Amino acid sequence: MIISRIAELAAAEGVVCESILVGSAARGTWLSGDHDLDVFIGVSEGSSLLPALEVARLVAPEHEERYAEHAYVHARFEGFEVDIVPCYLVEDGSRILSAVDRTPFHNRYVSRRIGGLEDEVLLLKQFMKGIGVYGSELKVGGFSGYLAELLVIRRGSFLGVLEEASSWRPGEAIDLEGHSSRVHDDPLVVVDPVDPGRNVAAALTLDRMFTFVAASRLFLEEPGMEFFFPPPVFPLTDDELREAISDRKSTLVLLEFAGPDQVEDVVFPQLRKAEQSVCALLDRSGFSVLRSDADWHRGARSEVRDGETAGRRPETFGGCGVIRMLFELSVAVLPRVERRVGPPVWEAEHAKKFVKSHPEPLSGPYVEDGRLVVEVARKFVEGPELLRKRVGGLSLGRHLGPELRRGYKIYVGQEILEVGDPEFRVFLARYFSARQMVG
Amino acid sequence: MIISRIAELAAAEGVVCESILVGSAARGTWLSGDHDLDVFIGVSEGSSLLPALEVARLVAPEHEERYAEHAYVHARFEGFEVDIVPCYLVEDGSRILSAVDRTPFHNRYVSRRIGGLEDEVLLLKQFMKGIGVYGSELKVGGFSGYLAELLVIRRGSFLGVLEEASSWRPGEAIDLEGHSSRVHDDPLVVVDPVDPGRNVAAALTLDRMFTFVAASRLFLEEPGMEFFFPPPVFPLTDDELREAISDRKSTLVLLEFAGPDQVEDVVFPQLRKAEQSVCALLDRSGFSVLRSDADWHRGARSEVRDGETAGRRPETFGGCGVIRMLFELSVAVLPRVERRVGPPVWEAEHAKKFVKSHPEPLSGPYVEDGRLVVEVARKFVEGPELLRKRVGGLSLGRHLGPELRRGYKIYVGQEILEVGDPEFRVFLARYFSARQMVG
Repeated sequence: MIISRIAELAAAEGVVCESILVGSAARGTWLSGDHDLDVFIGVSEGSSLLPALEVARLVAPEHEERYAEHAYVHARFEGFEVDIVPCYLVEDGSRILSAVDRTPFHNRYVSRRIGGLEDEVLLLKQFMKGIGVYGSELKVGGFSGYLAELLVIRRGSFLGVLEEASSWRPGEAIDLEGHSSRVHDDPLVVVDPVDPGRNVAAALTLDRMFTFVAASRLFLEEPGMEFFFPPPVFPLTDDELREAISDRKSTLVLLEFAGPDQVEDVVFPQLRKAEQSVCALLDRSGFSVLRSDADWHRGARSEVRDGETAGRRPETFGGCGVIRMLFELSVAVLPRVERRVGPPVWEAEHAKKFVKSHPEPLSGPYVEDGRLVVEVARKFVEGPELLRKRVGGLSLGRHLGPELRRGYKIYVGQEILEVGDPEFRVFLARYFSARQMVG
Repeated sequence: MIISRIAELAAAEGVVCESILVGSAARGTWLSGDHDLDVFIGVSEGSSLLPALEVARLVAPEHEERYAEHAYVHARFEGFEVDIVPCYLVEDGSRILSAVDRTPFHNRYVSRRIGGLEDEVLLLKQFMKGIGVYGSELKVGGFSGYLAELLVIRRGSFLGVLEEASSWRPGEAIDLEGHSSRVHDDPLVVVDPVDPGRNVAAALTLDRMFTFVAASRLFLEEPGMEFFFPPPVFPLTDDELREAISDRKSTLVLLEFAGPDQVEDVVFPQLRKAEQSVCALLDRSGFSVLRSDADWHRGARSEVRDGETAGRRPETFGGCGVIRMLFELSVAVLPRVERRVGPPVWEAEHAKKFVKSHPEPLSGPYVEDGRLVVEVARKFVEGPELLRKRVGGLSLGRHLGPELRRGYKIYVGQEILEVGDPEFRVFLARYFSARQMVG
């Protein structure tokens, strides 16, 4: 219906173009919960994308305009979410002008080979979704839908893919067309059949890859529905939360501040780096971090989306939500006395400077393993206090930094009970269990 | 007087021997507080040492017999402590039968060269004593008297030695006779002028060496009497001890058990190793040790003795005293939850075993940096409790192990106030200050 409407409107406007249904829906591998339909409007190289965008706008008068490398249209048609995306029709998949121009090539490659294997792809995608490794967006760092399709095309079945994955090692390389033209330094390399220089698995992280590997082995040994449909995770009640905290007897510290007005693919890399910066600050000062996690809570049900294209769709949410970073300390309080290990005595100039810079130590100076050592009064004896005083000075990313400096809250231990947001309570339930289908 | 008495008795008994005064007293480099006189009774190679020992016994009817490589006699003559030691008169200092046979060679080498330099030697020895690096016995691991004499002979003065030492580096080599016949892997190598294969500084530890180096530099920059005669250290009062503990806010743990009936040179190496074993036990379990120290308290005033020969003299004390080991923890309590990092997922067999061996973790298993991780309940959440339960199972040395297993006490934090032994309170005063003349 949409495609014939595009043809009509293009004819009326005098736009020379071709419209194509692409993505999983076009290939019979659409998984419920994935984003819905992708319709591309292709124009020839050298012409402008603007007339095609104008056609897209007319197809769906009630639409929202979004931007990735180029503008496109997002709309609803009879309950379906549809992206209408202008692109160039290029001759060769390796000589594209914009990332979206590659999509018709992927569509063609998969469509010609997937006949009869659609259910295998659906099984694999749902398995990946169930174990939490589905989606190539930066938030997940998992397998894209296209990658899942290529793996099935290569092995011929869902179980075949699991068997192959069981013996994967880091740096595993797969090249369906035997035409690789570049060396990649990624945990998994799957050379794009339509572009010899591209790794289809470039977004896959080591940990998602090996979660899949471990889960594959486990499933082959003892199959079960829970791999595809894990039991739902409910928000922790106050009592459950209180119990978890006193069960672990660690010190939990929650850092909370407003989310920025940005898309997930911009926010999540910053969030991971910010989490690492805070961990480094704490660890450097002796407050050892047992584990940490971070998320962006926007009052929306978080769902795995189709990885192949999710990167280019900004989400619309009411407000920009809350950034939450959780740090679990195994050491939260340190003694006042702190060792400072200086240079070896035989580096005379450094040794002299070191002694001068610690004029009134609590103990020392003394020589240990050939080095000068002093013991001085520690500046921060409590991890949460260090965080409170120093987090504003960390570089937390282009968008997260300013948001944090506008204001943040820190909750320590049982104070975390004050945060009732069900999305956060689900996050906590997942954090405490931390169980993956890997053993 | 002693030497002529030996000559008389030997003649009467028909023993062919030669008696010699050796050591610092013989060379005019005797330092008050060093052990007193060494008289050697030399017999020719191939004969027996027993007749010479018999002569020694007769010289001092009130004596005590002691043993090193061979038996010798310890006695008091008019307020002097005297060792009368049988030895062989060999031709060549490098072809000795027992360590004591080398002493007459040392005596001869130094006596011929030390004329006019005696005060320089006394200054150097007192300087070394003042900064705590004098004595080659294993308890100290410092400079022997003979080594101090050689350094002065080489540089010609006390200040010359300090200037030379100021630029020492680890592995420094000194060879007065240019006849070294072996490579040594020691922090300082001083080839014995009477034995080209021997390092006179073999007992010197890296830390004693560089305490001397740092103190030398400091003295040359700003000389002072306190290098030679540091202020006396008084036993900590209860109030001072209480204050030190609360000033540092660390957790002090004292382990106490009976001392063995052995000499210092047997006990101290075991004591250092035992201290390291306990530190390793604590550190392995996450209870990080800030600093530790150990000593053997026998109700005697601890004094620096002449390093050259102290190793061969057992001490006599009333009873065998108390072994005390002090551990200062910067982390004394840990959370119940503990991370266990397993093998990489791609090591399939190990991964499977790891999961099987942690059937009901508190959290996980999950994949982190490609490895399986679980979080389990920690066995010991308090360092002192771990020590109490596990110290008996450590290998603490041939003599210390059995003593500890016969019974020990552990004091934690303010409980340490219960131990009033002034020797221990001096030990604590030194521990808390830890100040060396190094900066």
